[in-house]
Amino acid sequence: MEQKQTINFGPGPAKLPQSVLLQAQKELVNYNGIGISVLEMSHRSSDFSKILSSTESLLRELLNIPDNYKVMFLQGGGSGQFSAVPLNLIGLKEDNCADYIVTGTWSERAAKEAAKYGKVNIVHPKLDKYTKIPDPSSWTLNPSSSLFYYGCNETVHGGGYNITRKQNGVVLVSDMSSNFLSRPVDVSKFGLIFAGAQKNVGCAGVTVVIVREDLLGHALNECPIVLDYKVQATNNSLYNTPPCFSIYIMGLVLEWIKNNGGTAAMEKLNKHKSSMIYDIINVSNGFYACPVDVACRSRMNVPFRVGKKEGDEALEKKFLDGALKRGMISLKGHRSVGGIRASLYNAVTLEDAQALATYMKEFLKEHQ
Amino acid sequence: MEQKQTINFGPGPAKLPQSVLLQAQKELVNYNGIGISVLEMSHRSSDFSKILSSTESLLRELLNIPDNYKVMFLQGGGSGQFSAVPLNLIGLKEDNCADYIVTGTWSERAAKEAAKYGKVNIVHPKLDKYTKIPDPSSWTLNPSSSLFYYGCNETVHGGGYNITRKQNGVVLVSDMSSNFLSRPVDVSKFGLIFAGAQKNVGCAGVTVVIVREDLLGHALNECPIVLDYKVQATNNSLYNTPPCFSIYIMGLVLEWIKNNGGTAAMEKLNKHKSSMIYDIINVSNGFYACPVDVACRSRMNVPFRVGKKEGDEALEKKFLDGALKRGMISLKGHRSVGGIRASLYNAVTLEDAQALATYMKEFLKEHQ
Repeated sequence: MEQKQTINFGPGPAKLPQSVLLQAQKELVNYNGIGISVLEMSHRSSDFSKILSSTESLLRELLNIPDNYKVMFLQGGGSGQFSAVPLNLIGLKEDNCADYIVTGTWSERAAKEAAKYGKVNIVHPKLDKYTKIPDPSSWTLNPSSSLFYYGCNETVHGGGYNITRKQNGVVLVSDMSSNFLSRPVDVSKFGLIFAGAQKNVGCAGVTVVIVREDLLGHALNECPIVLDYKVQATNNSLYNTPPCFSIYIMGLVLEWIKNNGGTAAMEKLNKHKSSMIYDIINVSNGFYACPVDVACRSRMNVPFRVGKKEGDEALEKKFLDGALKRGMISLKGHRSVGGIRASLYNAVTLEDAQALATYMKEFLKEHQ
Repeated sequence: MEQKQTINFGPGPAKLPQSVLLQAQKELVNYNGIGISVLEMSHRSSDFSKILSSTESLLRELLNIPDNYKVMFLQGGGSGQFSAVPLNLIGLKEDNCADYIVTGTWSERAAKEAAKYGKVNIVHPKLDKYTKIPDPSSWTLNPSSSLFYYGCNETVHGGGYNITRKQNGVVLVSDMSSNFLSRPVDVSKFGLIFAGAQKNVGCAGVTVVIVREDLLGHALNECPIVLDYKVQATNNSLYNTPPCFSIYIMGLVLEWIKNNGGTAAMEKLNKHKSSMIYDIINVSNGFYACPVDVACRSRMNVPFRVGKKEGDEALEKKFLDGALKRGMISLKGHRSVGGIRASLYNAVTLEDAQALATYMKEFLKEHQ
């Protein structure tokens, strides 16, 4: 029987490069000839030290991270960072205030969490739907804010936002969970960047935090010690046992990114893949509809409805069933928005995106 | 060349059963024929749901967990729970107080962390060294405490402590990170039990929390949402992306425990292995010395000095070098106490312990 190839368009945990999986498999029982698995390796051993430091070096190289930034590998996910960011940074100024942009589910959650620890100022009028970023002319910044926060890519709603100018002269913080290493980023513009690994750079269980070192040491008293950046940075992410295997997998993925041309090549690839899908949507005469403003459509997560603007649920079910028959999985939109969502992270190949494009064209022809 | 077998006596992350590693390797690239790896599987997929629910079912079966207890699989490690326990439970009574027993590094850290969130009462006079549990006659309990906390096994100092009687009528909380599932436990005696997986039940990155459900819903306002038991329990550990692969590995280890006779068989095996080592220490005329009181010696972590009571460092180095030549790794004592430490978790076989015993006898003969 012919083995049908599975194409994983999942929003995260998401597809990993095949070569990474093969290498992890090869050395799963006996890593590097040392007779044990990474799964059972002491986090204080010299073997794990090498994994940890080479992972950090690769990350520094790929993102050109300046020397005055610390890199941490933490547990708790992006949602853990929704708390850690205000716990560590909102006390930078005495008023304990923070400016937030809310453009989707994730930044909404982040802002809600920050309100536990200080005063949160949503800088713009509340959006009735998450399809754009409010115009900067409508923003009201709080001059005493300690930080300015935004989500760089909204996985659920499919918005991608770029803000690299300091707002109000305060520390710029960005959740890059779902577009991390999908393109070059000028780290020096940010006070802090964080990203869960399970989209573009690995499996679930580890979150990268990149923070300018002068921002360390301002944690609120109630900050749980495992979320205290100063403690974790000083201990090189080894204050307590880190998620060793997830860090190891991230190292393999970073190596794969490097071998495939780095962030510039990833950006080119991701532009190509996402344009292919958006182009079909744009010329479908409304058969496919993407609710997000053209100016801020994500290259990572492409949400669209099928049949009409607000979606024809029967047709969308048919679309998903047909996709599944072609081996394409995890294309269903987030339960809060419905429809279809194609996630096109780094490891999704051009051929994977082409297969989806071909199917979308066929489906359009048949059901228009 | 003959492949030397590695015997891993590490304190955690620690040895995993060989059959678990082989199975993980076998299905690493293509889990259960579905065409993708567990590493890239959506946490909301039906495949991962099955992994999660079968892991929980196995745990409930192995520990006979009563129905009115919730089981969670969280990130952040035992150290994360040092914060989560007081954040969720210290508010059970209005005085925000907690009673703590401090018998080693880990309970010391837990008590220090709890002091961020309320008033901590160390119930006994401060110990000048961690080699015993203070006699209950010396304890001063606080009648308004919300919980009574102790560490069930101190990995660094090698003490094992059993308290199952309710103290002061308050909720009993225990850190069982390093002896979890190494023996049967009557869960119904506890309000809460937690355990990092990387000793007896898996790899790093996931921590099990078992909590009586009437204790949920009392979190302090400043509790980070990922540490909020009510939120995590209500969402079946899926409030945010869980450490999927670590949970999967735990499932495989639990199956291995079940197939090998469950917690009763593990206890028998662990008694056997640890007695073997303690017996050699006891009859060595002081050549090997274990500082821990006989009444509370851990079956999991056997710390000992070589040459004399306070340790002969040159001889200890020789001991470790000789062990390494025999393939025995991670026997070095924790840096804070020195000497040797043999960790004998579930996956360490009788043969592994026998190899160590044989070496200890030979070394004694040669250097006595």
